Amino acid sequence: MSGKERLYLFDTTLRDGAQTRGVDFSVEDKRTIALALDRLGVDYVEGGWPGANPTDTAFFGSAPNLKRATFTAFGMTRRPGRSADNDPGLAALLDTSAGAICIVGKTWDFQVDVALEIPRSENIDIIADSIGHLRARGREAMLDAEHFFDGYKANPDYALECLRAAHGAGAHWVVLCDTNGGTLPHEVERITATVAERIPGIRLGIHAHNDTDNAVANSLAAIRAGARQVQGTLNGLGERCGNANLVSLIGTLCLKRDFADRFETGITADALSHLTQVSRLLDEVLNRNPNRHAPYVGQAAFAHKGGLHVSAVLKNPATYEHVPPEAVGNERQVLVSDQAGKSNILARLRDVGVELEPKDPRIDRLLDEVKEREYLGYSYDGADASFELMARRVLGQVPDYFFVDSFKVLVERRYNARRELVTVSEAIVRVQVDGQRLLSVGEGNGPVNALDAALRQDLGKYQRYIDDLELVDFKVRILQLGGGQVPDGNVSVDRWQAGTGAVTRVLIESADGAGNRWSTVGVSPNIVDASFQALTDAIVFKLYRDGAPAGTGPAE
Amino acid sequence: MSGKERLYLFDTTLRDGAQTRGVDFSVEDKRTIALALDRLGVDYVEGGWPGANPTDTAFFGSAPNLKRATFTAFGMTRRPGRSADNDPGLAALLDTSAGAICIVGKTWDFQVDVALEIPRSENIDIIADSIGHLRARGREAMLDAEHFFDGYKANPDYALECLRAAHGAGAHWVVLCDTNGGTLPHEVERITATVAERIPGIRLGIHAHNDTDNAVANSLAAIRAGARQVQGTLNGLGERCGNANLVSLIGTLCLKRDFADRFETGITADALSHLTQVSRLLDEVLNRNPNRHAPYVGQAAFAHKGGLHVSAVLKNPATYEHVPPEAVGNERQVLVSDQAGKSNILARLRDVGVELEPKDPRIDRLLDEVKEREYLGYSYDGADASFELMARRVLGQVPDYFFVDSFKVLVERRYNARRELVTVSEAIVRVQVDGQRLLSVGEGNGPVNALDAALRQDLGKYQRYIDDLELVDFKVRILQLGGGQVPDGNVSVDRWQAGTGAVTRVLIESADGAGNRWSTVGVSPNIVDASFQALTDAIVFKLYRDGAPAGTGPAE
Repeated sequence: MSGKERLYLFDTTLRDGAQTRGVDFSVEDKRTIALALDRLGVDYVEGGWPGANPTDTAFFGSAPNLKRATFTAFGMTRRPGRSADNDPGLAALLDTSAGAICIVGKTWDFQVDVALEIPRSENIDIIADSIGHLRARGREAMLDAEHFFDGYKANPDYALECLRAAHGAGAHWVVLCDTNGGTLPHEVERITATVAERIPGIRLGIHAHNDTDNAVANSLAAIRAGARQVQGTLNGLGERCGNANLVSLIGTLCLKRDFADRFETGITADALSHLTQVSRLLDEVLNRNPNRHAPYVGQAAFAHKGGLHVSAVLKNPATYEHVPPEAVGNERQVLVSDQAGKSNILARLRDVGVELEPKDPRIDRLLDEVKEREYLGYSYDGADASFELMARRVLGQVPDYFFVDSFKVLVERRYNARRELVTVSEAIVRVQVDGQRLLSVGEGNGPVNALDAALRQDLGKYQRYIDDLELVDFKVRILQLGGGQVPDGNVSVDRWQAGTGAVTRVLIESADGAGNRWSTVGVSPNIVDASFQALTDAIVFKLYRDGAPAGTGPAE
Repeated sequence: MSGKERLYLFDTTLRDGAQTRGVDFSVEDKRTIALALDRLGVDYVEGGWPGANPTDTAFFGSAPNLKRATFTAFGMTRRPGRSADNDPGLAALLDTSAGAICIVGKTWDFQVDVALEIPRSENIDIIADSIGHLRARGREAMLDAEHFFDGYKANPDYALECLRAAHGAGAHWVVLCDTNGGTLPHEVERITATVAERIPGIRLGIHAHNDTDNAVANSLAAIRAGARQVQGTLNGLGERCGNANLVSLIGTLCLKRDFADRFETGITADALSHLTQVSRLLDEVLNRNPNRHAPYVGQAAFAHKGGLHVSAVLKNPATYEHVPPEAVGNERQVLVSDQAGKSNILARLRDVGVELEPKDPRIDRLLDEVKEREYLGYSYDGADASFELMARRVLGQVPDYFFVDSFKVLVERRYNARRELVTVSEAIVRVQVDGQRLLSVGEGNGPVNALDAALRQDLGKYQRYIDDLELVDFKVRILQLGGGQVPDGNVSVDRWQAGTGAVTRVLIESADGAGNRWSTVGVSPNIVDASFQALTDAIVFKLYRDGAPAGTGPAE
């Protein structure tokens, strides 16, 4: 036993984070993120609100197989005028296999009066009944105490009475929510300490929003005052100004002595070293550029500029770094030769199953290749298959399979014979397999679609390997020259380049009949060209993994 | 007299913020921002480090004419082994007309030993001499106590001795810097209170960085513990994870009772109502997209979604808003596609200069059109010009200018005569202007680029209107069917559809020679088609705004 107190991490990316405007997780996205959170070592993964929308209902219908995290459903306390037994919302929650259920209840008298329009005592009954009902059905039950801090400031006695009702009914957790996000850290600390003192034995959680830029500080303040569950989202996703950023919180809770010496979370040192990766994964799913300046995990979080700092940093990193970047899977960025690059690339290679000795001279060639490609705009964070192929190509492990001699894509918009405006896309691809020239044609509802159809129409002896290949996702990102992508910020770019001439990065996710999934990347000023690279990488990766035989060289 | 204590705001956007990688202010940029900060009511505007680089030297050479803020220069304490009188750095600072001078000195014994490599007592002398020298020349003198919190934790006596030296030499301010950004709010509060207690009469400032996501909280904690000057940058600009966000701090200091009742800043209520504008101005200068989720000033900071919330918000905004958005010059956002649609669309129309009576029957048609288009994947959040065109088309205000009969785009990848792999893109566009058929061709480094070149090659009598038109940004987003974009999440889509067949939304930003900028949107399963819509909207918007004459109808 470590003698430390256990502190529980509760992730609500898939519920509160999903309510952000512009965020549209598919069931598959939710599964990907839930599994990543489980691997990270979060205690609770709140998957959504079953019954509230088709995606969440479907996601809970085929719950992800989590190894250690408790899969959690969100919902509401019973409606006024219904018994808990007859409440369809509670029934929908209990219909799921979720191990824990978190229900939102009101604790601000003003909200009870104005929004619910019921007697205040009835609201107390609603909370107690609903929690009791979940307990009676054997679930771990949590009350999400909506607007708690505003409620406490307006009417402390009533707010406490609501919490007591939940606690008395057996709630495993009572989560203090700063729903509007306007409470400041010193208030959170004072109020949380008071609750802990007034309701002995209550297990408190904290749910903070970032409307004053204090969501992380509010969470830490609550923990210092007695909360033992902390809720947040990856990268602080969430409506308005976002939720407490769980990534920042994990960094501090695991690495800062005042917290790490006192509390134990479910995050191991090894899992912590994947924190940056988990953070970037969410951005990949959302097709967003990661925040370069994010605490702990941002690309610039440990960037040191030339001059004074650099030699001191290299002498002793503790001089200018508050934590070691590798602890969270991030890296030091020093403009002079990057010492951390080598161990980092070894770790990334191990992740994709390529084991190399640290002294292997090929690592330097690999490092040069990665740097060169990242300079051009490639990013392997969300494209493991392309990363593995690139590495194995440098190592001479990927045979030649087929050769594409040329392709041609035509997009045409015109009036057809019935005077309807139509846009058609066609592609022609010339491929060689074992010296044999194959000509394929495909059509689709866009140029990339058509190109993909043509490319996979006839691959000769490789056709049987790709018959079950499917494209399941396709993402496009425009990389602006003159931004952080180009090392010298003073590069003068023609304004055209900054517009439609910018570099395009395409990420493609593929799947096969056996349930494997892999991601590939392509970069080019030309979106069709970038897509073509990612499409061919997707095919080559499948051929390599399935052990397809090499082809003979191209005919002259 | 208000009886409140005066709290001073110190902006370092132009000094510490300017050190961010990728940020490159011109002298003119610095002047623009300094004047905006002065109008806002900040007390100190730190302009840079005169003598350190040509821009800063030039900026201090023609100092902006600030009405109330003190223009401040940053520099270093004298070098070891020099007298203050003979130190070129101090001389360069005193050569400027800056009313206040802030010099950085070391307070961490470890840094004195390892980085300076001088006896610790000599460092104390350096601090005292340098501050005394500035005082003797009649300047307001501040010590920027580098690494103070790390220094205090390592050796509190020495760290305090450094501060005492500055205070004893007459420093107007001693600013406690969390240089590495790793100190947590409870530590900042405790240490700042100790300093205030141990060195009576010292005037303390706080300079925090955001490496643990606590820069704003650290600043507030220091103020609560006795600091009366707070340093920060607009939008939290700064290297690594940024500085304390002065915009968030101003919101809280001016609007939250625990601070606003106790402290007085130089920010009037009227100036505060321009806070959002000042924040956006910095992004404009940096050519960045504003952070939608920024506390107080982000576009989404007061966004309310449909359903439960909206009616409650409209009944009583205090229910769901921690401060009134108009106090900081921001606005409430209620989504169009819900109950609040009508008043919302009127507000959006007013924003783009279209005034309609609330009872105008055309509003319902407009609302239907917006809903229909948002259902198809259009988003007008970032496309004001397309929104205005759509509205004015429904209102019959946009004449026909030109007609596109057809276009054709070809992308070809092949080996050229020198056996190099090349990808070429060409486009042909057939347009009618006043019944005259025009055939244009263009090439580019991608299909959209080529189409744009062709479209703008010859527009007959409209050509002179678009000669100065430029594309300055181009964004692509793939909208997945089956996600939140389609009301029924159960729509069974062919997996193809979920891949390269998904719907594409293209946003284009255009500019003209007069400095106007406008954004347009296009949506289609075909990326070329979507781009074509956005490109033509960009042209039509310019023709409309510049009052180009209508064309005659198309020839049969």
